[in-house]
Amino acid sequence: MSKELLDVAAGERPADKAIINGNIVNVLSGEIYEGGVAIYGDQIAAIGDIEYTIGEQTEIIDAEGNYITPGFVDAHIHPESTSLAIRQFADLVLEHGTTTIVTDLHEVGVVAGEPAIEDVLAENADTGLNIEYIVPSHVPFSPNLETSGAIFNHEIISKALDHPQAAGLSETVGEYIWRRTPDLLAAIDDTLAHKYVVHGHLPDLDQKHFNVAIAAGVTTDHEAISADDVIQRLRNGAYALLRDGSAARSIGQLLPVVLEKKLNDSRVSIITDDLSTTDAVDRGHLDEAVRSALKLGAGFIQAIQFVTINPSNASGIATKVGALAPRLRADINITTGPDDFKVLATIAGGQLKARDGRIIAPSPVAEHTPRLLNTVHLQRPVTADDFAIHVDETASKANVIVADVLPWIAITQRRDAQLEVRDGVIQSDVDQDVLYIAQVERHGKNGNIGKAFQGGFHIREGAIASSVGHDNHNIIVVGTNLEDLAFAVNRVAELQGGQVAVRNGEVLAEVPLPVLGLLSDKTGEELAADKHRLNAAAKELGSSIPDPFIFLSFISLAAVPAYAVTDHGFIDVAQQKVIDPVSSVE
Amino acid sequence: MSKELLDVAAGERPADKAIINGNIVNVLSGEIYEGGVAIYGDQIAAIGDIEYTIGEQTEIIDAEGNYITPGFVDAHIHPESTSLAIRQFADLVLEHGTTTIVTDLHEVGVVAGEPAIEDVLAENADTGLNIEYIVPSHVPFSPNLETSGAIFNHEIISKALDHPQAAGLSETVGEYIWRRTPDLLAAIDDTLAHKYVVHGHLPDLDQKHFNVAIAAGVTTDHEAISADDVIQRLRNGAYALLRDGSAARSIGQLLPVVLEKKLNDSRVSIITDDLSTTDAVDRGHLDEAVRSALKLGAGFIQAIQFVTINPSNASGIATKVGALAPRLRADINITTGPDDFKVLATIAGGQLKARDGRIIAPSPVAEHTPRLLNTVHLQRPVTADDFAIHVDETASKANVIVADVLPWIAITQRRDAQLEVRDGVIQSDVDQDVLYIAQVERHGKNGNIGKAFQGGFHIREGAIASSVGHDNHNIIVVGTNLEDLAFAVNRVAELQGGQVAVRNGEVLAEVPLPVLGLLSDKTGEELAADKHRLNAAAKELGSSIPDPFIFLSFISLAAVPAYAVTDHGFIDVAQQKVIDPVSSVE
Repeated sequence: MSKELLDVAAGERPADKAIINGNIVNVLSGEIYEGGVAIYGDQIAAIGDIEYTIGEQTEIIDAEGNYITPGFVDAHIHPESTSLAIRQFADLVLEHGTTTIVTDLHEVGVVAGEPAIEDVLAENADTGLNIEYIVPSHVPFSPNLETSGAIFNHEIISKALDHPQAAGLSETVGEYIWRRTPDLLAAIDDTLAHKYVVHGHLPDLDQKHFNVAIAAGVTTDHEAISADDVIQRLRNGAYALLRDGSAARSIGQLLPVVLEKKLNDSRVSIITDDLSTTDAVDRGHLDEAVRSALKLGAGFIQAIQFVTINPSNASGIATKVGALAPRLRADINITTGPDDFKVLATIAGGQLKARDGRIIAPSPVAEHTPRLLNTVHLQRPVTADDFAIHVDETASKANVIVADVLPWIAITQRRDAQLEVRDGVIQSDVDQDVLYIAQVERHGKNGNIGKAFQGGFHIREGAIASSVGHDNHNIIVVGTNLEDLAFAVNRVAELQGGQVAVRNGEVLAEVPLPVLGLLSDKTGEELAADKHRLNAAAKELGSSIPDPFIFLSFISLAAVPAYAVTDHGFIDVAQQKVIDPVSSVE
Repeated sequence: MSKELLDVAAGERPADKAIINGNIVNVLSGEIYEGGVAIYGDQIAAIGDIEYTIGEQTEIIDAEGNYITPGFVDAHIHPESTSLAIRQFADLVLEHGTTTIVTDLHEVGVVAGEPAIEDVLAENADTGLNIEYIVPSHVPFSPNLETSGAIFNHEIISKALDHPQAAGLSETVGEYIWRRTPDLLAAIDDTLAHKYVVHGHLPDLDQKHFNVAIAAGVTTDHEAISADDVIQRLRNGAYALLRDGSAARSIGQLLPVVLEKKLNDSRVSIITDDLSTTDAVDRGHLDEAVRSALKLGAGFIQAIQFVTINPSNASGIATKVGALAPRLRADINITTGPDDFKVLATIAGGQLKARDGRIIAPSPVAEHTPRLLNTVHLQRPVTADDFAIHVDETASKANVIVADVLPWIAITQRRDAQLEVRDGVIQSDVDQDVLYIAQVERHGKNGNIGKAFQGGFHIREGAIASSVGHDNHNIIVVGTNLEDLAFAVNRVAELQGGQVAVRNGEVLAEVPLPVLGLLSDKTGEELAADKHRLNAAAKELGSSIPDPFIFLSFISLAAVPAYAVTDHGFIDVAQQKVIDPVSSVE
């Protein structure tokens, strides 16, 4: 207990800082009223009438009649989806009012294991962003269908739960609970014994499957994609975390039922899950979620509750963050009102971090620990022939399964196509929109290359490749010709990770991601500009998907229907097995 | 984790019991819809459409179209206030739908210490009532102003927090936190380290005092007595537990502001604090609270939330009880609707405990451990002269301070009176309504007797005495003549505790409370009948207070203004010291 904090609350010691002249959006009482907030160290000492806490040395922050809200809490986000190193991520989201994220740093864990997550948490120490660490429950996601850089077994999870920032278990997969996977059930029991929250990943479950997950101890889910899904979650014991992120912007499908049926909104939060840098820079983070909610008809206090006390309650961290009250972390936003909502200033852990959407003192680039660097290990440079799908040399045609990605979401559907065979090698066909796609193991473990046929991108020249690929982060590449596939993959390896667009052996644009092959040390704005250039290059190659690299990163996820491509090969997701993309030759 | 529970939720093993044909009052989603509840062991396996969980062996409970609610949770009650031993208390409140109480068993602790509390928790093991034990934080309440049977220091509290049923720290006193009492602050830190809730006792605090309590870690309070108090609590970080009990029925003053201002009702609960047996039998427990809330305009779902999920959240026990969802304790009520609300059946821990307001299998009387019995130890029988207030033998008049109890609440006010002195002894005066009052130490520690003058009861003959007196449970007695005071106290001691009404050396009525001098092994109905007889006898003596024993029990509380009488003497509560009730003699 901080005796000094009590002294400030008692009026016996001056506050360090005092925010005055505000309209408090009190998410606990559900009121808006005039007042201020007194801060001592990194905690709130008093709210409302705080005149008595102000001394000569107290730094005054004048809210000038604007609103005062708690700092925003994202109860489910993978910060790696921005491709920013954690400090630059923190700077970017602080500019938008986010002061706490609940995250598993899953992608970091996939590449370099639990110690790497702890390194990243340490890098974040001085940013002002509060990270509540929920331990990844499923690395690798599909042990028999992909090669990851690290694994998280029950023993590792159990140890990670003792980390001082630990606050739960992440993304417990409904299907694996249904199968009563012993390691997962043991990890859940451990988590509950710590009095932490077990977060679910419960997409598309029938009522029985859903009940089993809740019976096991899951109390949140962020995979609702329909109004019925939202009702299912609320009725059966899961806090509903509604997704409004870059990979799934579903709030328009999810929030209206809450508002129209006047459901118990205290168990509803808005989260982003995945957030691209370009979206974060161009649109925002949870400030954008507030705008979305307001647009859909939410009340102002209600919209703020969706990104403060509600996610905090859902995450079991309400004694630390999510509201304005004595003892809570001094995470505070000064904002405009509901008509033109934006964050004017952000105080995180008692420090003024951002004003007018600009970070005041950008975080220095981290000196990364060795395990976060040089993580891309090909056994040898790849060649064009590595990507060739060979069939009988006498064949002239091949009947293949093409995985067509949908234009609006990275879900694939089956298309059957007939392709030419030359010298025993099946040929891509841009006119039919059939491309080569492959994933190359890059953790230095086995050099696996999985190969298949892809549609939906409409690329007509060259190739694009990326070392970001859920949930294994091998190098995934899609393109029109085998030479460019090899060139692109080798370039990504040379960069020690990144995303490239190439044509005829030349790099059109590239974004190096040297940290874990996933992250950049650039600022959000710089990286957003780079990403815009990269996407423009992909568009020049013909891509009809605005950000094809995000789609690409989900095509390697053996959990997203109907097909995936991992280093193990072409995956039938429903069957959870490797299948041959070549149906027959003639 | 119960694998069998998962099997039931999966439809792979039949439910033990299935409640069917109900209208589920879903406090999580905020809806009412048709469905049922499947139970396995003491847990819920599924709700809603539970047809798939029913097997041949499944016991069917037909709700016959009635409502299905979670079992009720009282987030702050002292079960000893009913004067019933814990098993008979459990039977009584289960009849009214209460399946969980959050309690400190403070009175048990005052008399016989923490081991006695554990004995009582053990006695309760098979009743079906779930007890969440919040450790007493202040025994004795006023160490320098009263003698208690036991003390709770930081070491004892710390150990108690490891009890398997522990869930928090109880009644942390705002004033003691303000004084930064080291032992109390250490106990609070311990409680928070356990991730338990620190419950407050924060009556009548200005904003600074309130802020200090919240800054220390308190997150609930049940002492609001006005609309402003409710707002203060909600705004500043405390869950508001609104009192609707026998000693303070304040809901009419407290709930309207929540409803009219549409405050955040998820942080509002109704609790009873103290509940007399007669009230419990005649009116009910939290079923009565629901009726009160409905009468004041609460919605049906909202009223049920006030006594289920809300108190559960406030108490940090929502992963165990307070709602209908898989994995939660199978605590379920079948009720009528809002127009004539009553509990038709109560299932607690998966067992059908009560139907139509009657317990199905009354609990057997407990075989109490020795430390719960024979706890009344006078050093010798008292005599009339022990209660005489002696002054100068030559005096003929004495000017005294009389503590007048208010007719509707056990709060006292000063009245100055002049009394006759005979042979150096000040005389009571029924015509002026000035009675003798005294408290006799009964824990065998020092034989202290504190003496003063009392008004407001209007007793004109005899005396009444009780071994129930907050917060020390010495024997308190009030009456018209010194002989009857001594007779009444000696009778209470002979009974090993109880409440008596006497006149001219004869017992008019008595209620033995042989367990700790506080509790009876009778059933609620039997005891209520006895208490009605006792109160009738007190009325025959002239008492104008309907239940004078409840008032008497608060007059010994050195925290209730303006005056108290403890074994140490006449207490000025504001000054927190013993004063002389005799101002002057002439």
